[in-house]
Amino acid sequence: MNIEVCFSPQSYPLFHNPGSIVVVIDILRASSAITTAFFNGVSKMIPVSTIEEAQKYKAEGFLVAAERNAEIVKGFDLGNSPFGYMSTKLKGKTIVITTTNGTQAIQSAREAHKVVIGSFLNLDTMVEYLRKEKKSVVFLCAGWKNKFNLEDTLYAGAVAEQLIYKYGFNSICDSTIAAMELYKLAKHDLYGFLAHSSHRNRLEKLDLERDIRYCLTPNQCPVVPVLDGKHLIKGN
Amino acid sequence: MNIEVCFSPQSYPLFHNPGSIVVVIDILRASSAITTAFFNGVSKMIPVSTIEEAQKYKAEGFLVAAERNAEIVKGFDLGNSPFGYMSTKLKGKTIVITTTNGTQAIQSAREAHKVVIGSFLNLDTMVEYLRKEKKSVVFLCAGWKNKFNLEDTLYAGAVAEQLIYKYGFNSICDSTIAAMELYKLAKHDLYGFLAHSSHRNRLEKLDLERDIRYCLTPNQCPVVPVLDGKHLIKGN
Repeated sequence: MNIEVCFSPQSYPLFHNPGSIVVVIDILRASSAITTAFFNGVSKMIPVSTIEEAQKYKAEGFLVAAERNAEIVKGFDLGNSPFGYMSTKLKGKTIVITTTNGTQAIQSAREAHKVVIGSFLNLDTMVEYLRKEKKSVVFLCAGWKNKFNLEDTLYAGAVAEQLIYKYGFNSICDSTIAAMELYKLAKHDLYGFLAHSSHRNRLEKLDLERDIRYCLTPNQCPVVPVLDGKHLIKGN
Repeated sequence: MNIEVCFSPQSYPLFHNPGSIVVVIDILRASSAITTAFFNGVSKMIPVSTIEEAQKYKAEGFLVAAERNAEIVKGFDLGNSPFGYMSTKLKGKTIVITTTNGTQAIQSAREAHKVVIGSFLNLDTMVEYLRKEKKSVVFLCAGWKNKFNLEDTLYAGAVAEQLIYKYGFNSICDSTIAAMELYKLAKHDLYGFLAHSSHRNRLEKLDLERDIRYCLTPNQCPVVPVLDGKHLIKGN
């Protein structure tokens, strides 16, 4: 049960292993939004990479979420603010979603044994899920336009730390060491640690303070979204 | 004067800026070997990507260094152990070099304003060089087969810390923050911090303990190798 951390969807082919579970991480905000949606009773989500695909679903009458550069794309129903996914109106619904980084990361990992969606909101539930699965794990950080980002890395470190020190997983990967060391520095004040991070600053300019605080608060949504064919469903 | 840290040669196109200086980093051991060579009076080095190119030079009578997977390739004169580059016989010579990661990183950055070679051996000299150049800097970590590695990242953090806190450079890049935070943790005992790192373990198996300790000891070789056309020369 080996752990690796991949810092960019572009690098994923170097980490691909058909026997591994891939945890896709896009803390600010796609994976937090998806976790929130399932916790609030959404039935299925269909992640798509492009606005064009999203438009086709929209034309067929689907409820469609589309975000680019942290904002809702004009003409769509939702963006990737988790607060958009808390309405009781969404219960039992199927939502199509495309985001700047997160949904493309999901697509790139499609051929893995399983693809699951990780966020601080489901931290301990994810640890428990991976512990029971007993498979090697690749943490796939969505990053920002294929560049490294801190918040996704910290989550990888948070889960890896528990799997390695409590449950006998191992790692010979320097990015796992880096992620765990950074998480150790950040864990008592994630919000403070990320004060100078690039994406937090990007979102603050858009007045998304409340979103950031929510996305960094662990264990609010004990669900693990998992990819089943082209749909995400609740996997636990 | 902006700073970015690129964790893999594969990602370099995302960071390329024709006005930037690229610091190529392959601490264990290509960039340490190159720094050592110039400090010991080597006149020029010609970095090439493939064994085939290296063989052509060899056939023409050049002195050629070739390393793959941490060992000297059979039939060549040198590998990438810095201790191979300390002989007085090499003074004034031109050496062709190809290594698993480092020389390919150099090739990928060819189009930048300048390409220089960084190692702990030239740490303070590099800071001084970059301070005087007053250009944006991309730290290009050679990594290991396009994956992230710790020792290259720590060096990027070490130089970035001085440029930002002493000399008014800035960064809006999460990988710079990560590199500096990791360096802060490691700086008082680089050797100990890297105890579990993947490449240190790879080299220890080959009994390269002495090489590792040397490569992690700052400021032994106050020279900055710089790319000039197809040659590396002493740039300071």
